[in-house]
Amino acid sequence: MIVLSLSEFRNLAGKIASLLEAEHVVFEYKLFPDGESYIRLPVEKVNVEGQDVVLVQSLYPQQDKRLVELFFMLDLVKRLGVSRVIVVAPYLAYSRQDKEFRPGENISVLTVLKILEKLGTDIFLTVDIHKEDVLKEVSMKALNVHIHEEVASFLRGKVLPSETVILGPDKGALGRAKSVASLLGCEYDYLEKSRDRITGEIAVKPKELNVADRNVVIVDDIISTGGTIALAAKSVKELGAKRVIAICTHGLFVRNAVGRMISSGVDEIVTSDSILTPYTKISVAKPVAQTIKQL
Amino acid sequence: MIVLSLSEFRNLAGKIASLLEAEHVVFEYKLFPDGESYIRLPVEKVNVEGQDVVLVQSLYPQQDKRLVELFFMLDLVKRLGVSRVIVVAPYLAYSRQDKEFRPGENISVLTVLKILEKLGTDIFLTVDIHKEDVLKEVSMKALNVHIHEEVASFLRGKVLPSETVILGPDKGALGRAKSVASLLGCEYDYLEKSRDRITGEIAVKPKELNVADRNVVIVDDIISTGGTIALAAKSVKELGAKRVIAICTHGLFVRNAVGRMISSGVDEIVTSDSILTPYTKISVAKPVAQTIKQL
Repeated sequence: MIVLSLSEFRNLAGKIASLLEAEHVVFEYKLFPDGESYIRLPVEKVNVEGQDVVLVQSLYPQQDKRLVELFFMLDLVKRLGVSRVIVVAPYLAYSRQDKEFRPGENISVLTVLKILEKLGTDIFLTVDIHKEDVLKEVSMKALNVHIHEEVASFLRGKVLPSETVILGPDKGALGRAKSVASLLGCEYDYLEKSRDRITGEIAVKPKELNVADRNVVIVDDIISTGGTIALAAKSVKELGAKRVIAICTHGLFVRNAVGRMISSGVDEIVTSDSILTPYTKISVAKPVAQTIKQL
Repeated sequence: MIVLSLSEFRNLAGKIASLLEAEHVVFEYKLFPDGESYIRLPVEKVNVEGQDVVLVQSLYPQQDKRLVELFFMLDLVKRLGVSRVIVVAPYLAYSRQDKEFRPGENISVLTVLKILEKLGTDIFLTVDIHKEDVLKEVSMKALNVHIHEEVASFLRGKVLPSETVILGPDKGALGRAKSVASLLGCEYDYLEKSRDRITGEIAVKPKELNVADRNVVIVDDIISTGGTIALAAKSVKELGAKRVIAICTHGLFVRNAVGRMISSGVDEIVTSDSILTPYTKISVAKPVAQTIKQL
């Protein structure tokens, strides 16, 4: 088994390779003056023919460029005669466009998965996908890996379970909160929205638990503009929460997301290395490698 | 038959539609804050089920974003049950990466064509592709349309054939020069490179023809950095050429291409609307529509 990646993602790919006890080789890459990507496998260094290969590619920022590069890498290794191709895209771009919200919309994540499948992906792996159901709609083996254990490990060194509540920012995130909480042995809940009948303002508060004088950990899959987390942090701080930690798998952090969260009361931000941010404190490498080992 | 495009390419798509006497419908498009493209067909305005559709998409600048959008549009109209899909990409991005120049390189234009084919393109149309042979390597019908007649028409109003020479900037471009020249009824040639034995400097000059006191029209498929054209213009001006007109189908104009050409003696720059530039004076719409009519 050989792990391949662009140089830009060598940290994560290298970690996965070392856990798999596999060689890690970096593609030769350049950007032409007109903006075209150039991808070459250093065939003088590595022979992939007949081998299982793992392609590791981060799909943010510059989703479309990263996707096209991934298509190129995939098509290339197939032409070079590899055995199985395992595509690891820890953050799956377009994963929130997973259904026709209005008639006539493209289901973009399905187009992406379809292209990966048609170019010869044998196994597709992603981490904490927005909604898992979409993976059932393609014929290739497509797996979603969770990092609940990594989140729990990180928190063990930070907070006392008895003084901590894990919150999902909405009902859809309750499962994630529950999984992390059960590993840590602490309570969990989700935030319920309400709209003020007079001002129209939206507020959130924990469905059942009291957060006063407790640490609150908000767990989510993706943080984009940070609006949801900012509102959650503000609310629990007003309810007397001590420390607020916001943990997400994929930190997109568009516009002033970080500033917005911090000024709303978030004390610490944590992301995984699915997308490198200044707040990357958790790695997806171990659960990804474990899943690959069990294939 | 219905012609579909993004709003950004409505001019060209609209022209093609009007020549085909077909309806032109624009996709609803937005860019999410994180950079993802959103594509929706306004199904309340148009029913594409069972129809032949023509998708028109320019693939420059932002090749990868434009490609992914095209994949989305294609996958969407297939899901909506269209009959045949004709993809018109007047400028085919990655067309210069059409072979393995060094072992281990991806043949990127083939990956692009393969994705278009696998997503259900019935007929693919491009204009003045860098090298035509690559179109034979896919199973879908893939056609290359020339704009020699449009270039000749443009020149008829500008120069006297008897005072004009059409030049290909290298031997590979001789066919294009010949085609335009035969339509115009003037002479043609190509520029031959030589390297000064002492200074190492590269110079070019017409293989056979004398350009002194004549207009020189340099015709090429793509102008990228403008280096080739700048060298050609400088050389023919030194040989006494009067007016130098540089005509290309696809004007990428990276970096200071325009300044470089003008300061080297180019008097006029002309491009087609395959990519809109300030020098777009020719449209690919007519030859594209004619080709579609004959399908």
